[in-house]
Amino acid sequence: MFFASDNWAGAHPSINERLSRESTRFAAAYGNSDLDKAVEARFNEIFERDVSVYFVSTGTAANSLSLASIARVGGVAFSHSEAHVIEDECGAPDFFSGMRMVPVEGEDGKMEPAKLSARIAGFPQDSLHHGRAAAVTLTQATETGTIYTLDEIDAITRIAKANGLPVHMDGARFANALVSLDVSPAEMTWKRGIDILSFGGTKNGCWCAEAIVFFNPELAKDFAFIRKRAAQLFSKTRFISAQFDAYLQDGLWLNMASHANSMADRLRAGIGSLNSTRLAWHTTSNEVFAVLNKASAEAAEAKGAKFYGWPVPTNMPEPVREDETLIRLVTSFATTEEDIDQFLSICSAG
Amino acid sequence: MFFASDNWAGAHPSINERLSRESTRFAAAYGNSDLDKAVEARFNEIFERDVSVYFVSTGTAANSLSLASIARVGGVAFSHSEAHVIEDECGAPDFFSGMRMVPVEGEDGKMEPAKLSARIAGFPQDSLHHGRAAAVTLTQATETGTIYTLDEIDAITRIAKANGLPVHMDGARFANALVSLDVSPAEMTWKRGIDILSFGGTKNGCWCAEAIVFFNPELAKDFAFIRKRAAQLFSKTRFISAQFDAYLQDGLWLNMASHANSMADRLRAGIGSLNSTRLAWHTTSNEVFAVLNKASAEAAEAKGAKFYGWPVPTNMPEPVREDETLIRLVTSFATTEEDIDQFLSICSAG
Amino acid sequence: MFFASDNWAGAHPSINERLSRESTRFAAAYGNSDLDKAVEARFNEIFERDVSVYFVSTGTAANSLSLASIARVGGVAFSHSEAHVIEDECGAPDFFSGMRMVPVEGEDGKMEPAKLSARIAGFPQDSLHHGRAAAVTLTQATETGTIYTLDEIDAITRIAKANGLPVHMDGARFANALVSLDVSPAEMTWKRGIDILSFGGTKNGCWCAEAIVFFNPELAKDFAFIRKRAAQLFSKTRFISAQFDAYLQDGLWLNMASHANSMADRLRAGIGSLNSTRLAWHTTSNEVFAVLNKASAEAAEAKGAKFYGWPVPTNMPEPVREDETLIRLVTSFATTEEDIDQFLSICSAG
Amino acid sequence: MFFASDNWAGAHPSINERLSRESTRFAAAYGNSDLDKAVEARFNEIFERDVSVYFVSTGTAANSLSLASIARVGGVAFSHSEAHVIEDECGAPDFFSGMRMVPVEGEDGKMEPAKLSARIAGFPQDSLHHGRAAAVTLTQATETGTIYTLDEIDAITRIAKANGLPVHMDGARFANALVSLDVSPAEMTWKRGIDILSFGGTKNGCWCAEAIVFFNPELAKDFAFIRKRAAQLFSKTRFISAQFDAYLQDGLWLNMASHANSMADRLRAGIGSLNSTRLAWHTTSNEVFAVLNKASAEAAEAKGAKFYGWPVPTNMPEPVREDETLIRLVTSFATTEEDIDQFLSICSAG
Repeated sequence: MFFASDNWAGAHPSINERLSRESTRFAAAYGNSDLDKAVEARFNEIFERDVSVYFVSTGTAANSLSLASIARVGGVAFSHSEAHVIEDECGAPDFFSGMRMVPVEGEDGKMEPAKLSARIAGFPQDSLHHGRAAAVTLTQATETGTIYTLDEIDAITRIAKANGLPVHMDGARFANALVSLDVSPAEMTWKRGIDILSFGGTKNGCWCAEAIVFFNPELAKDFAFIRKRAAQLFSKTRFISAQFDAYLQDGLWLNMASHANSMADRLRAGIGSLNSTRLAWHTTSNEVFAVLNKASAEAAEAKGAKFYGWPVPTNMPEPVREDETLIRLVTSFATTEEDIDQFLSICSAG
Repeated sequence: MFFASDNWAGAHPSINERLSRESTRFAAAYGNSDLDKAVEARFNEIFERDVSVYFVSTGTAANSLSLASIARVGGVAFSHSEAHVIEDECGAPDFFSGMRMVPVEGEDGKMEPAKLSARIAGFPQDSLHHGRAAAVTLTQATETGTIYTLDEIDAITRIAKANGLPVHMDGARFANALVSLDVSPAEMTWKRGIDILSFGGTKNGCWCAEAIVFFNPELAKDFAFIRKRAAQLFSKTRFISAQFDAYLQDGLWLNMASHANSMADRLRAGIGSLNSTRLAWHTTSNEVFAVLNKASAEAAEAKGAKFYGWPVPTNMPEPVREDETLIRLVTSFATTEEDIDQFLSICSAG
Repeated sequence: MFFASDNWAGAHPSINERLSRESTRFAAAYGNSDLDKAVEARFNEIFERDVSVYFVSTGTAANSLSLASIARVGGVAFSHSEAHVIEDECGAPDFFSGMRMVPVEGEDGKMEPAKLSARIAGFPQDSLHHGRAAAVTLTQATETGTIYTLDEIDAITRIAKANGLPVHMDGARFANALVSLDVSPAEMTWKRGIDILSFGGTKNGCWCAEAIVFFNPELAKDFAFIRKRAAQLFSKTRFISAQFDAYLQDGLWLNMASHANSMADRLRAGIGSLNSTRLAWHTTSNEVFAVLNKASAEAAEAKGAKFYGWPVPTNMPEPVREDETLIRLVTSFATTEEDIDQFLSICSAG
Repeated sequence: MFFASDNWAGAHPSINERLSRESTRFAAAYGNSDLDKAVEARFNEIFERDVSVYFVSTGTAANSLSLASIARVGGVAFSHSEAHVIEDECGAPDFFSGMRMVPVEGEDGKMEPAKLSARIAGFPQDSLHHGRAAAVTLTQATETGTIYTLDEIDAITRIAKANGLPVHMDGARFANALVSLDVSPAEMTWKRGIDILSFGGTKNGCWCAEAIVFFNPELAKDFAFIRKRAAQLFSKTRFISAQFDAYLQDGLWLNMASHANSMADRLRAGIGSLNSTRLAWHTTSNEVFAVLNKASAEAAEAKGAKFYGWPVPTNMPEPVREDETLIRLVTSFATTEEDIDQFLSICSAG
């Protein structure tokens, strides 16, 4: 019953197998092997256009260096107020990009377009003292388990473009969003106006596989140096390539995400049907936010369930009572029906 | 015949096996799993004292963040003029530490103590305009295949300590040096006055395993934040731990290094005995620098041998002739006798 | 009728005279002259204790380098949401300190203690992902013309100290606050728990005189290097010293601030008494925020009055109507009664 | 007898008078006053083309922000090995530009073209590990009192341009070089291929007046933000403008430099003619390097002469004996014939 995070899961057997196979041979270092080139080419196929792809070690690195690649002196980057870049990366985006992260409010973990516009308006291009708007970053799926629709992405990128700002997508849970929306990678990204993508594999069955995808190669022109100076160029890069090779093979990545999402569906259904539990808000990715009575939560933990509490937002439709607790449950490729049913069973007894 | 670099090798089967085994379970992220703790404890044993250990993604990260942990504003760090931190890391050490790298000359890739002293004297602690001495970093084994003896390390650290400077060791090829000197990890590090070590596993049979070892825990007090802000905290850290777990098990790491060194010995012996080749200078690690006549070099490359040319130093005992070329050959855990013999055979025909 | 800012004023004749006198002699550069030493000693007297004093070129430099001196990796600094460090310094505090500025709300331009506590609680010392609390900075007088009482400063510093955080005071208008409260420099700073002060002279009759005052010399131990690396060490430092020498002589600085404040009183009284104008909120420093009907504002501008519009806060007690405008009026040592009366006269006709 | 540095001198009476006059009026802050605009226009005249001019507080700031404006990630900047940017600025150029300063050797304090070429060749544009060439900076007049001829400047810029590198000139003693060469500002800068100039006034009779002049406005497009974020935008900028206004009026700047140079000539002539003293090497600016017997040096100091010792270069034509000392003597607009004659008289008795 491991629901603490999708990064508590291990790695998919196919990915391990591919790594093992790769381990037996020699090949060029620093991203210059045949495998590296082949996997880069696979990204072109996946995204139906020529893209520039760079691997890095962590999601924080992917986001931070993406922002660094489009940074401007005195610039600010806009994200949702609960975004990972603001809340969970220890200032790495500011450190690498030299920009300040400016929060934009919005329901359901999504920037509200009108509020984004208003925020951008506060940082005109000649705003020497206050700072100037320089970038927009949105998270898909969001930190609160929701997913921007294609139209909602369009609304964000339209505002950004009208203001001359590049748009980054933090796709730490990109695959979960993709299968939930049932659209193509191209449709969810560059066809919507996304310029740079943090393409995450680690949370979805790899052990360490994060890529930065530039849809506009011009933005990547200095990126090899940005990455190297950031100490993010692996010597044995091909072991990241190997992970992605298996990940992208025969739709494994989509299958794993589908599995995670459907396990979340099972959780959502169960939690919604019990008396002692309810969904805190509606989610459609592999994250579920639930209100449990404390007795249920403690019982589950006592029996080995792993999950984290979540700060109660101020705008909850139904308040969390004294004897209740708000928790986050995350599923992954490795989550089983048995785990979920056991968890629900404990809760139903609570 | 892969002699381009030890980072062209794959990963040892035992390390793969350990990774695969780890991949099937759930465990806490960000270095908080039982395995992470166990491997950290293993480092205490290996070094015969309580150490603080932090994993990072690359050797450049290990060096750069080590220096960042002891950085002082307006400070400079001293290294050999051919050190990786100066020559090969794209300014990452400067970027993360905010310090300038100051070169110190010396024969055989090693800082000459008298020259280190003189350099340090040029940067007194109140030297506001010129900058102040802040750190010393030495590479073991060196970039040119040589190895500091214990006495030579002592000579460096004694000068550093006399000037109040912490000492970092870049141990990208730590194991190769260790088995060559046939001493214990403690003897080659903190017993010699080393404060911080970049402990490299990637070049020696792991696929991505670099650790920073603090012998003085006080120096590490802010390091968790330094690493996180540098985007170097893996979510699935335990997969690095797993590599180190196998690496440190039953002396695998030392065995691999011994194998690499003995393969280099075989190369050294062969190259020294041929008419068409000679050793450029004496080395004792897994790196061999050889002068080949160009015909031999081209013949070897034509038959698939991989190696890099090396810039000819100004102080070569015997000059490199027009029809000769200087190359570097690096062996690893994966190098075979057959490869070496085949290479030598081609050269002998040259 | 120059009310745009106190930095539109020139320099006081006594300060000019002192500069001219200093210009005729030779003296040691980089802060090592007799005059530099004498002025530093004057600061000890002014603050009734031994302090460390460093001159810099701008208020932004004073704030940014103050924060840099107490910066921690992954740290955040708390200020009021409308503070200069957040709103008006183009990210310089973030750039020099490496920290993010976190806004704290509060009425009247002052941090509300309970909200400061709550904010700090969100950044515990082991908060690796979100960041850790590292510093508090408050502005005296505030950006909105108000002044923290001694008790209010105490309330802020008490919370900071309870959390182990150093406290910086942005005193760009330090003298205006001091004379308004009618207290001593010591009482408004270190006796209240302030650790570092940006002591501004430029807005109060100097042309370029900003000092950073460390009440705790330990915090200043690296500061000479921080300043030099920030390119803020003047060669002819003594010309800043000369300005401060005159500034601090015979209470000139307090007299200038008193004059500015009393000119603001005259403005406040006049604006409060007219039909076409009203005070937007109560202020006690040399800044006045007024709501004018637009006709009056335009008439004044047409006759040469200089002032800036001010964004209307969401929580105005009395809303600003369509035909009204909110403006800021700032007085200085150089403001005359005639200017104020002329301005009021134009408004009264509006 | 103040020969320690030209920054020990005060300020010229005309500059003081202009400052005093400016101090009596109100005017727009942050470089937006009529005077600021007028002085900017003056720079266009002085340089016979449209230039972009930005004032900063120190020579270190001028150099550091100039380099920041042309910085590239992973880039290195080439300067003479004794240049101020390497030797005397506490790493500020590295800090602001993010680049490493790479020394180029050369006689007489000037980069030797062949050595510059060789150095640049070591940092090709795709040199990911070692770093890439990004900028060249030369000092005019040099740190050792010499002056690049126009042809010598051409030789440097030609190499830079051939490698696609912008060229910065550190003109802390720009006027001294100009009058020595007897050429126009345009001839010594952009007509020679200089892109950016640190135009120093402080050492030549101002008290704080440093400008960055961009001959290629495209390079300045982000500079307002670079300067503001570096905390170098003065609120009362017009007091720098006022200094430059007087400085550039009726050739005052050239007259002051001529005076300083001719005082140096007088020193050179005197020192060359005495038995107890000799010129260490030939200089043509306002800096004189002399070898004195120690008795003379001590006698001069005892009678109040101020000067600094200078490290003895390894390549002195005539070695400095045990009983001799190498010193630097700097003249300025304020140096008098009497001071020089008194100094020489003391030496001649030595």
